Amino acid sequence: MSPNLVIVGTVALDDVTTPFGTVNRALGGSAFYGAIAASYWTSVGIVAVVGEDYPETGLNLLASRGIDARGLERSSEKTFAWTGEYSYDLNTAITRDTRLNCLLSFDPKVALHYPRPETLFLANVDPEIQGRILDQLSDRPRLVALDTMNYWIESKKEALLKVLRRTDLLTINESEARMLTGEFNLVRAADAIRKMGPKIIVLKKGEHGALVFYEGGIFASPAMPLEVVKDPTGAGDSFAGGLLGYLTRHAKLSPEFLRQAAIVGSTMASFCVSDFGVAGTKELTMDQISRRTGEFLDLTAFPRIDIGDRRL
Amino acid sequence: MSPNLVIVGTVALDDVTTPFGTVNRALGGSAFYGAIAASYWTSVGIVAVVGEDYPETGLNLLASRGIDARGLERSSEKTFAWTGEYSYDLNTAITRDTRLNCLLSFDPKVALHYPRPETLFLANVDPEIQGRILDQLSDRPRLVALDTMNYWIESKKEALLKVLRRTDLLTINESEARMLTGEFNLVRAADAIRKMGPKIIVLKKGEHGALVFYEGGIFASPAMPLEVVKDPTGAGDSFAGGLLGYLTRHAKLSPEFLRQAAIVGSTMASFCVSDFGVAGTKELTMDQISRRTGEFLDLTAFPRIDIGDRRL
Repeated sequence: MSPNLVIVGTVALDDVTTPFGTVNRALGGSAFYGAIAASYWTSVGIVAVVGEDYPETGLNLLASRGIDARGLERSSEKTFAWTGEYSYDLNTAITRDTRLNCLLSFDPKVALHYPRPETLFLANVDPEIQGRILDQLSDRPRLVALDTMNYWIESKKEALLKVLRRTDLLTINESEARMLTGEFNLVRAADAIRKMGPKIIVLKKGEHGALVFYEGGIFASPAMPLEVVKDPTGAGDSFAGGLLGYLTRHAKLSPEFLRQAAIVGSTMASFCVSDFGVAGTKELTMDQISRRTGEFLDLTAFPRIDIGDRRL
Repeated sequence: MSPNLVIVGTVALDDVTTPFGTVNRALGGSAFYGAIAASYWTSVGIVAVVGEDYPETGLNLLASRGIDARGLERSSEKTFAWTGEYSYDLNTAITRDTRLNCLLSFDPKVALHYPRPETLFLANVDPEIQGRILDQLSDRPRLVALDTMNYWIESKKEALLKVLRRTDLLTINESEARMLTGEFNLVRAADAIRKMGPKIIVLKKGEHGALVFYEGGIFASPAMPLEVVKDPTGAGDSFAGGLLGYLTRHAKLSPEFLRQAAIVGSTMASFCVSDFGVAGTKELTMDQISRRTGEFLDLTAFPRIDIGDRRL
């Protein structure tokens, strides 16, 4: 059986230091975080590469979440490894080291393993690779979602613009949106991105939540204020995984489902940051998730303000 | 007739430069911005000082908004003058010059003009002065709200802690909250501030909105994403004015009214930033305001997420 949501991205081993601790060779990567968050909502397949040193625990974890790993290639090189550090300002990661290793020769074969995904999430990889993946598929997925980063905006803008024309939904952070469009104002930046292709722009603002721009509206999803935030690594990928998992499950892109999907994304991100690596997202119950989405409703709901025709 | 809401703070003449223009000797100051925003919701009195150079237009504007200016002293010195600049990042003002002028000898006499305010807003002035104002009043106002800034947290912390013990509601920005408590995490910082006195903490996050912490809950009010933001000066004061004006009008501090009041504050702030000085807030209709509060509902509302008992 073919999974409904296919995520192409990285699987990594992360060394992360935050003010609350250090983890070494933690299971990570954009596709890994995204797939785990999405797996609560729909069937998920992963397309990525790992090295000969990748531990069984990573494969077992994917299996325990029912994630289809037929698209996970095994290379004879080492696994992609990222070393990062967060200071007390947990918003910005300082990259200490990046060893691309097996990622350098990564040539993902989506169509081979999953010829007809409903939703395809092209997580942050080279936009030329993202474009080639779309070329492989004879049937265009119902929803093509894409993530990118400042590095590609600077170094491969033409390739990025080309793949954006074939994209329905873009996840991007504030500074990347500004860099991509040359617009400082985020409303204008979203308008400019819409003209590049994607009709839905999900602007990620870290601890300030996310803004979803769609045809005819904007939705502001807050981040949950948490008393314990240990490690923000993977929060954006967990957000995207939850969002796209929910959208795939319901197969609808109405404003109502988009809004709920953003809250589901924020919910998964809130679990992610509460612990190191995927410790916060790997074994949740639907009860825990349901309680957290209810907390988001509590966080944002207010009674309509009836001003009447009072004049002072 | 005595006004229900009394605001003690500054009335200033501001020279402001943003990427979208420059204004000179613009009508400003915390009490000025706050009073105008509040005047749509309740009767407002202002306690501040201006110099001999203060223009008639400022007084006329207060009068046109029905603001009681009996508490506005006239000094023989010059008016407090602030010169500031915003770069493309409209979040942070760079102060180029501050001439305190008549503010140096400001000794506000609240009780003299307004002996029994329902709500007293002690905007950002020296905490020793804030304390003396509370001493003047024989009847404690129903609601005492306070604003402060990093300067006072650093230089007069003892006086600030003393007046905080007599405060019900504190408006404070993120970095000030962290500085005041030594807690980086905002949920913990709010808890720590609650132990200092104020039961309601309004955490101002600029373009990211505000978080209201109250006994038993948190409310996240977003900022309205606007296509045109010209000048953020006074946004925080307009927010506080709208919030306190609404709370004073309804004389209730239930979670529902607090939430609505935060949205009213965000509404007034959104009008404020859309133009220079008070141009965006000085002559609104209740229709415009009502439409904007409706837009905040559109921005944040989502249907309850029914997860059911599905297990993957």
